[in-house]
Amino acid sequence: MATWISRRRPPVELPRLTPRNTPTQAIRVDLHEVMPDLLPYLGQAAYLQLETFQTLSRVVGEVDALSAKEKVAAAAGHALSKHQGVVAEIRRRGDDPAEVMKPFADEIDGFSALTTGADWRETLLAVLVTSGLLDDFFIRLAAGLPGDVGPRIAQLLGSDGGQEGVLDVLRDEIEADQRLSSRLAMWGRRLVGDTLLVARSALHLSGNAAKDDERIEPIFTELIAAHTRRMDALGLTA
Amino acid sequence: MATWISRRRPPVELPRLTPRNTPTQAIRVDLHEVMPDLLPYLGQAAYLQLETFQTLSRVVGEVDALSAKEKVAAAAGHALSKHQGVVAEIRRRGDDPAEVMKPFADEIDGFSALTTGADWRETLLAVLVTSGLLDDFFIRLAAGLPGDVGPRIAQLLGSDGGQEGVLDVLRDEIEADQRLSSRLAMWGRRLVGDTLLVARSALHLSGNAAKDDERIEPIFTELIAAHTRRMDALGLTA
Repeated sequence: MATWISRRRPPVELPRLTPRNTPTQAIRVDLHEVMPDLLPYLGQAAYLQLETFQTLSRVVGEVDALSAKEKVAAAAGHALSKHQGVVAEIRRRGDDPAEVMKPFADEIDGFSALTTGADWRETLLAVLVTSGLLDDFFIRLAAGLPGDVGPRIAQLLGSDGGQEGVLDVLRDEIEADQRLSSRLAMWGRRLVGDTLLVARSALHLSGNAAKDDERIEPIFTELIAAHTRRMDALGLTA
Repeated sequence: MATWISRRRPPVELPRLTPRNTPTQAIRVDLHEVMPDLLPYLGQAAYLQLETFQTLSRVVGEVDALSAKEKVAAAAGHALSKHQGVVAEIRRRGDDPAEVMKPFADEIDGFSALTTGADWRETLLAVLVTSGLLDDFFIRLAAGLPGDVGPRIAQLLGSDGGQEGVLDVLRDEIEADQRLSSRLAMWGRRLVGDTLLVARSALHLSGNAAKDDERIEPIFTELIAAHTRRMDALGLTA
C-alpha cells in the first residue's frame, strides 16, 4: 500500500459547505512555500490523468447500455487528452515522461485501488469525485508554477472532461434504483478524505501541522465547495 | 457464442503473399452487389472501433513499463477518435448510435473474447492484426457508400492509429524474449481466419459460395498482403 495511505489522517477540517459563489481571488493563500517543483507537479498530474483514463475505460467495459458506454468513453477520451497534454509539457522541457511520472505510480495505483467501488456506479462516482477535486486542486496550484506553463496547464485541466455525460449516466442509474442514492452519498463522503490526502501529498509541507493546515485549509475549503456542488448535481448530499 | 463464429469456415483462400506494390485500382471488384447498407456499415465500424478502444485500454492497465503504457494509451485514444468520428456520421443522419451499433454488439464482443490472448502481448498483437485487417476492409468498402460519406470514413479509418507505437512495444518485447517470436507468429496466423469471417459477415452475400468467393477473394487477397507487411515489420512470418 502506498505510504500516504497508511499515514495518519491529517487534522484537516473538511467543512460541509452549501454551494456559494466565492470568487477565487477573495481567498488569498501564499502558495509559494508549499508549491511542488514543476517536474513533480507535472508527473503527478500526468499520472493522475492516465489513471482516470484507465478507470473510465474499465467502466466502459462494465456498463451495459451503449448510450452510457458512449458517454463514459467520451470522458475517458478527455482524460487521455489531458494526460497527453501534460506529457507534452514534460517533453517540451526535454524530460522523459515515464521517468517523471514514475515516482507517483505506486501511490496513485494504490489510490485507484482504494477508490474502486463495489460496482461500476460507485467507481464512476469515484472518478467524478476524485478527479473533480484533484483537477481543481492542480488548477489552483498551476498559478504558482514558473514561466508560462501555469496558464496552459490550468486551461488544459479546466477543459471539458465529459463530466456532464458522466452525471447523466449516474442520474439515470439513481433514477432507476432509489436505494442507490444513499449508497452513493455514503461512498462519495468516504472518497473525499483519501482524495485530499493525495492533494496534500503533492505539497511541500513544513512538518508543522498547525502551520501547514493554516496554509492549505483555504484551498481545501474551496475544493470542498466545488465538490458539494457536484454532489448536488446528482441530488446527493455531500 | 456469436453465430458467425460457429459457422463453418468459408472456403476463402488465404494466400501467403510476399509484400508487393499493387495499386488498389489494379484490382477491379464490383462491390456494388455485396455492399452492406450504410447504417449497418456505420454501426459495425463504430462498434469495432469501440471494442478496439476497450481492448487497448485494458492492455494499458496490464503493461508495466510507463513508456509502453504511453504508446498503447495513444493507440487507444486513436481508436476512440475513430469510433467518435463514425458515431458523428450516424448522428449526422439523425440516427441513434446506440441503436445502430446494437445489432453488432454480441458478435463483436464474441470476436473480442476470441482474440484475447494468453497475455497482453498476444492481445496487443491481436489488436494490430484484427484492426489492421478490418480497418483496411472498411476503407475498401467505403468506396461503395452513397453520397459523400465514403471519402470521409475512408480518411477517418485511414488516419494514424498509433500503430507505430504498438509495433515499438511489441518489438521491444520480442527482443527481450526470443521465444515470444514464434508464439506470436502462431497466434497471428490463428487470428486471420476469424477476422476475415467478421469482414465477410459485413457483406450481402448471395449464398452461392463459389460466386461469393469469386467476388470477395480479390479484396481479401489485398487485405492479407497488407497484413503480411505488418507481420514483417515485427520480424514475424505471416
